[in-house]
Amino acid sequence: MAGERDTRLFRRIAFVGFGLIGSSLARVMRRDGLAGHVAVAARTQRTLDKAVELGLADTTTLDPAAAVEGADMVMVCAPPGTYGEIATAMAPALAAGCIVSDVGSVKQVAFRDLAPHLPDGVHLVPGHPVAGTEHSGPEAGFAELFEGRWCILTPAPGTDEGAVERVAELWRRAGMMIEIMDAGHHDQVLAITSHLPHLIAYTIVGTATDLGDDLKQEVVKFSASGFRDFTRIAASNPVMWRDIFLENREAVLEMLGRFDEDLTALQRAIRRGDGDTLEELFKRTRDIRRGVIEADQA
Amino acid sequence: MAGERDTRLFRRIAFVGFGLIGSSLARVMRRDGLAGHVAVAARTQRTLDKAVELGLADTTTLDPAAAVEGADMVMVCAPPGTYGEIATAMAPALAAGCIVSDVGSVKQVAFRDLAPHLPDGVHLVPGHPVAGTEHSGPEAGFAELFEGRWCILTPAPGTDEGAVERVAELWRRAGMMIEIMDAGHHDQVLAITSHLPHLIAYTIVGTATDLGDDLKQEVVKFSASGFRDFTRIAASNPVMWRDIFLENREAVLEMLGRFDEDLTALQRAIRRGDGDTLEELFKRTRDIRRGVIEADQA
Repeated sequence: MAGERDTRLFRRIAFVGFGLIGSSLARVMRRDGLAGHVAVAARTQRTLDKAVELGLADTTTLDPAAAVEGADMVMVCAPPGTYGEIATAMAPALAAGCIVSDVGSVKQVAFRDLAPHLPDGVHLVPGHPVAGTEHSGPEAGFAELFEGRWCILTPAPGTDEGAVERVAELWRRAGMMIEIMDAGHHDQVLAITSHLPHLIAYTIVGTATDLGDDLKQEVVKFSASGFRDFTRIAASNPVMWRDIFLENREAVLEMLGRFDEDLTALQRAIRRGDGDTLEELFKRTRDIRRGVIEADQA
Repeated sequence: MAGERDTRLFRRIAFVGFGLIGSSLARVMRRDGLAGHVAVAARTQRTLDKAVELGLADTTTLDPAAAVEGADMVMVCAPPGTYGEIATAMAPALAAGCIVSDVGSVKQVAFRDLAPHLPDGVHLVPGHPVAGTEHSGPEAGFAELFEGRWCILTPAPGTDEGAVERVAELWRRAGMMIEIMDAGHHDQVLAITSHLPHLIAYTIVGTATDLGDDLKQEVVKFSASGFRDFTRIAASNPVMWRDIFLENREAVLEMLGRFDEDLTALQRAIRRGDGDTLEELFKRTRDIRRGVIEADQA
C-alpha cells in the first residue's frame, strides 16, 4: 500500500528442520515481518504441529522439496549428519538465485554434504549463529536468543556478494554481529571454544552418573559448588552433539590431545604437592576471564 | 531494654581471614544483629581497612590471638593451607567454651591442622557453606550469597551438641539448609561435585591460554558457545584452590582417574566414528541435569 514500508527481506523462506535455533529465527522473522511466507519442513509431524501451534509457519510439510519450492531463501536447521539426505531431497525443487544457508556448529560439512547437490545458480552461504541454550525443540525458542552474539558466515571464495549480504542482514535483524571466515578455520576455533568444553562436560557428568546411587544423590544435592554448570552444558541436544563430534573429528581430537597433556601435567603437580605450578596456572587463567568480560560475552 | 528481643547468637564473633565468604557472613550478622561484637583478623592491613570501610568490623587486628580473645565464636575464613599457622597463633587466647568453626571447601584438614592446637574445652565444628562466586575479597561479598544453599557441618563424633546446634543456627539465619556428615565423606563428595570441575575448567582455560595470539582472541570472541562458563569457574581464587587440591589430593586424584578413563573411551568413540556410544552417553547425562533442577540447585 502507498506509504507502507516493505519490511520483507525474502519472499518465501523455507526452514528445513525446526528446533531451538530455527524456531527462534522464525520468531524474529514473524516479529519484524521479514518474509512474505514461512514454510517449515521437519522430520516429524509433531514438530510441524508445534510450528503451527506457535503461529510460526504459514505452511508445513514432511517433504523438504515441497517447502523449498518457490523459496528465495532456504535455512537448514537440522543436525549436520542429515545434510546429505536433505540436500538430495530438496535439490530438484531449488530455483536458480535461491540462497541456501544453515545454522550448524560445524561448517566444513556444508561444503561436503550440501554443496555437491545444489543446482547451478543456487548460492550456498553456510552460517553459524553462536548462540543457544541447553534446551531443544521448537517450543524452547525465543526471539531474543541471538541478541549481542556473533554469527559466523563461511562462504566459499567467489560466492555471490549480494547473497552473502542478504544472509548477513537477516542475522543482523536478529541482533547479531557478523564475522566472515574460512570454514576450516571456523571448525578449528569452535573445537576449542565449544566442542571441547561440551565433550568435557558430557564426560564429567557421565563420570558422576557411574557413581553409586548414594554418592550420586549427594552430587546432585551439592552441585552448586561447580558441577551444576557442567550439567547444564551436558543437557544439550544429544543428536546434534553426536554429529558435531563426528563431523569435526580431527580438530576436536587435536584439541583434546592438548587438553589431555595439560591435564596430565596438572595431575602430576597435585601428586607431587607442587603448589607453585598450580597457583601459577590458576592466576594465568584469570586473564582470559577478563578478556571474555571485556569482549562483552560474559 | 524492656520489650526488646535479643537477636544475638554470639557475644563476640572473631573472623580469622575475611574474603568473599567471611565478609558475606559478616553482612548477614550485621543485617540481623547476630553478634554483640565483630572482630576481624586478617593477614593484610588492606583487608582490615576494607572491613572497616564496609562497616562490617567493630575491631580489626593483624593478630589472630587479639581477635579471638573473649570471643564465644571463631570463624576461620582463610585458605586451608594456613590453618596450622592460624591455630598456633590463636590457641593461647581461646577461652574454654568457645566454638571454633571454618568455611573451607576441604574438611579433613580441619582435624589435622586446627584440632591438635585447640585447648581443652574449645569446641571444633568444621563447616562448609556450599556457595560462592568467582569473585574474591571482602568487597565481593553479599548477604544473600548463602540463601537456599547447603551448609555441610562435619563435627567429630562426641562433639558437644549445643555447639553444633549454634553453628547450624548461624548458617540457618544466613538462609542455608544444614547437612551433617563425616569429614572424609565430605571430601569425597566435593572431589566430584566441585574440585574436579574446577580442575578441569582451569585446565581447559589454560589450554586456550597456550594457543597463538590470533586464535586466542577468537576463542574469547566466540566464548558464548560453551567456553565462557569454564572461564568463570577458572577465575576463582588461585590460592584457595591451590590449597584445596593439595589438601584433598587423594580424593581428587581418584576422581580424576575415573574421569580420565571416561574421556579416553569417548576419544576412542570419536576416532572410530562410533556415533551410538556418543549419543547414548549424551542422553544419559540429561537425567542428571533433571535431578539438579528438581533438587532446586540449578
